[in-house]
Amino acid sequence: MMAVPRPRTPLVAMVGGGQLARMTHQAAIALGQSLRVLANTTDEPAAQVSPDVVVGSHTDLEDLRRVAAGATALTFDHEHVPTELLEKLVAEGVNVLPPPEALVHAQDKLVMRRRLAALGAPVPRYLGIEEPDALGELDAFAAEIGGPLVVKAARGGYDGRGVQMARDLAHARDIAGEYLAGGVSVLVEERVSLRRELSALVARSPFGQGAAWPVVETVQENGICVQVIAPAPDLVADVAAEAQQLALRLAGELGVVGVLAVELFETTGSAGGPLLINELAMRPHNSGHWTMDGSRTSQFEQHLRAVLDYPLGDTDATVPVTVMANVLGAAQTPQMSVDERLHHLFARMPDARVHLYGKTERPGRKVGHINFLGTHADGPHDLAELRQRAELAAHWLSHAQWMDGWDPHAGDDAERSDEEERRQ
Amino acid sequence: MMAVPRPRTPLVAMVGGGQLARMTHQAAIALGQSLRVLANTTDEPAAQVSPDVVVGSHTDLEDLRRVAAGATALTFDHEHVPTELLEKLVAEGVNVLPPPEALVHAQDKLVMRRRLAALGAPVPRYLGIEEPDALGELDAFAAEIGGPLVVKAARGGYDGRGVQMARDLAHARDIAGEYLAGGVSVLVEERVSLRRELSALVARSPFGQGAAWPVVETVQENGICVQVIAPAPDLVADVAAEAQQLALRLAGELGVVGVLAVELFETTGSAGGPLLINELAMRPHNSGHWTMDGSRTSQFEQHLRAVLDYPLGDTDATVPVTVMANVLGAAQTPQMSVDERLHHLFARMPDARVHLYGKTERPGRKVGHINFLGTHADGPHDLAELRQRAELAAHWLSHAQWMDGWDPHAGDDAERSDEEERRQ
Repeated sequence: MMAVPRPRTPLVAMVGGGQLARMTHQAAIALGQSLRVLANTTDEPAAQVSPDVVVGSHTDLEDLRRVAAGATALTFDHEHVPTELLEKLVAEGVNVLPPPEALVHAQDKLVMRRRLAALGAPVPRYLGIEEPDALGELDAFAAEIGGPLVVKAARGGYDGRGVQMARDLAHARDIAGEYLAGGVSVLVEERVSLRRELSALVARSPFGQGAAWPVVETVQENGICVQVIAPAPDLVADVAAEAQQLALRLAGELGVVGVLAVELFETTGSAGGPLLINELAMRPHNSGHWTMDGSRTSQFEQHLRAVLDYPLGDTDATVPVTVMANVLGAAQTPQMSVDERLHHLFARMPDARVHLYGKTERPGRKVGHINFLGTHADGPHDLAELRQRAELAAHWLSHAQWMDGWDPHAGDDAERSDEEERRQ
Repeated sequence: MMAVPRPRTPLVAMVGGGQLARMTHQAAIALGQSLRVLANTTDEPAAQVSPDVVVGSHTDLEDLRRVAAGATALTFDHEHVPTELLEKLVAEGVNVLPPPEALVHAQDKLVMRRRLAALGAPVPRYLGIEEPDALGELDAFAAEIGGPLVVKAARGGYDGRGVQMARDLAHARDIAGEYLAGGVSVLVEERVSLRRELSALVARSPFGQGAAWPVVETVQENGICVQVIAPAPDLVADVAAEAQQLALRLAGELGVVGVLAVELFETTGSAGGPLLINELAMRPHNSGHWTMDGSRTSQFEQHLRAVLDYPLGDTDATVPVTVMANVLGAAQTPQMSVDERLHHLFARMPDARVHLYGKTERPGRKVGHINFLGTHADGPHDLAELRQRAELAAHWLSHAQWMDGWDPHAGDDAERSDEEERRQ
């Protein structure tokens, strides 16, 4: 293992060619860099926009070596690289960030939950099941909880997949049994009584510097985040500070380098306080997309700064409130092209900050997001209006339908065509 | 000439691989696109970061055809493409924006000045000289002005090149004679008594929609812009509105599509009012770099929206004041790498919004810029402080010297190395 001299212009390599890598490339450009990505195909979101693409698989050691060759740091747009491969790369001198011993906590919900519990962090009551033989422990756990249960596959899930609400004990046993039969450990936990979900986003550098953005509210539908409100409205200042401190502390304890998202439940009241940790992500995260337009430093630039061990950027919000809405593929993809939809959106909402990922539309798939910035304190837009506009805009972009029945041509002379109107 | 069907994802091609194309690519990514660029070499700023690069010359018709092939629109990061080539492309069905008949006003200062005068726009008193035989007209013009003269080459200059302050009439004649001998027409004008320079930046779409950003002050040193203050401090509201209306009107009269920068002199008093037009640029412009962080819509996104005939974006400022400082190559390039300089800058100023172009440093060359955002009205930073910080930051990045003598290690134990300190 030899020390590789640091190049004069840093090169960050990212495993994964999705939208997170795409947006990280945008941030890299501002820093005088260009992001190298490992993508499965050349038409993945990041591969469409970066000239430095290694086509290959994140489960193939040779491909990982190719993307890491000469890079200042190797980092991730998802958490699906097997840690044993990452450990080999580390042994070969690759600067893997976050390091595999941290990343495992974002890969395996059971490892994460046990570690957090050992650190005294607030988590829902839970039971880990690693073998079909241990399924019987479920009965005692269910009796202890005395309420509804959630059953999660420890690995492989995202956007609500691999997370199921059990109807009853028998159902919980069936779900757990199925995951175990598939060779995946199971995390069973109490279904907590939620006020809402929050996310505490922070970044940490190898030097040990930490930076926290304002805590946000994440609004979920069917297990998928549909909106983020930054900062979380009416969040008690002490609770916000507690969430930030918790996330910074965990980043340090787990040895995270880069962005860490701590997804939290704000409960209607639990023994340890109002916050319980749901999940961790160690990469730029959906709950931080608002930072691209609403914060001094975006999460993508911050992730690069962290893995390059640059001092971290100012995380202040630039405006009093930002609402982010995800654009999710509709059940039926509209006939109208995205280009035409964008045209109409911009006509109605000139302040919409659109971020599209270049992805083919599929039902429920995240294909973009839109940020709406609240005006200064004396401005006209209140939060309810911002949220409504964000919802309208996101629904329009995915469905080519205005939910409020808005008609851009209302009042037009019915005999005049669109084209004539444009030429006026 | 056949109508080419509009692709479902628009493709904008830009002639020129410089920093403007580089930053336009960043904006294209957010719109779900990727910018195609015509670059002289693969290591030009935009070619480093876009996967869609045509290597060739902007004066070669075949190269221009290659970059335009299949593009929704062809646009520019500089104004040096000969209009006769652009007219051929237009005849072949290429959607050239701004069209050559508009662009010529940004290519030729004399054509521009005459057209503006014909439109009744406020311009300095001037004399156009197209032939060495006509040099004699200079005497009468100088007598009419009765004050100092500026002599400009009508074509080919930028960043102060091709613009000379004449010491006296004989000197003016010498400069003009030299340009004419080189086959370039000459624009001689009165040297106006300046309060300061302003820039009115607007965009216009083919549909005819116009949008104006707040008018800014541009601070020049040796003919090169060093700082931009947005909005221009203490600018009388009527004058600001007049500048915006003038720029929007000119965009319409000249048929500009895309961003138009109208560089203005604010005089200490002239017959027609306080404003005189200095120059025009029909592309994203240095005086609009502040919009990347300080406005709802950046000039780069707006330029794309305009050439794609999308409705234009909100041009409101997001913060009360933004200061942009150019990073200009030092007379002697520092030993310290840019990477290390960036590290130190971020350590001192976590709120600096840095944009680097990936260019080799050369004396006076624009290699990046930095934006500083003023806080809300109740924040701690006043304009003088913002400007000072911007100047310090830009000087540091180019010279690796803090002009105020700041020492990051002041107070350190002298026997402790930097490296030890980092590991603490």
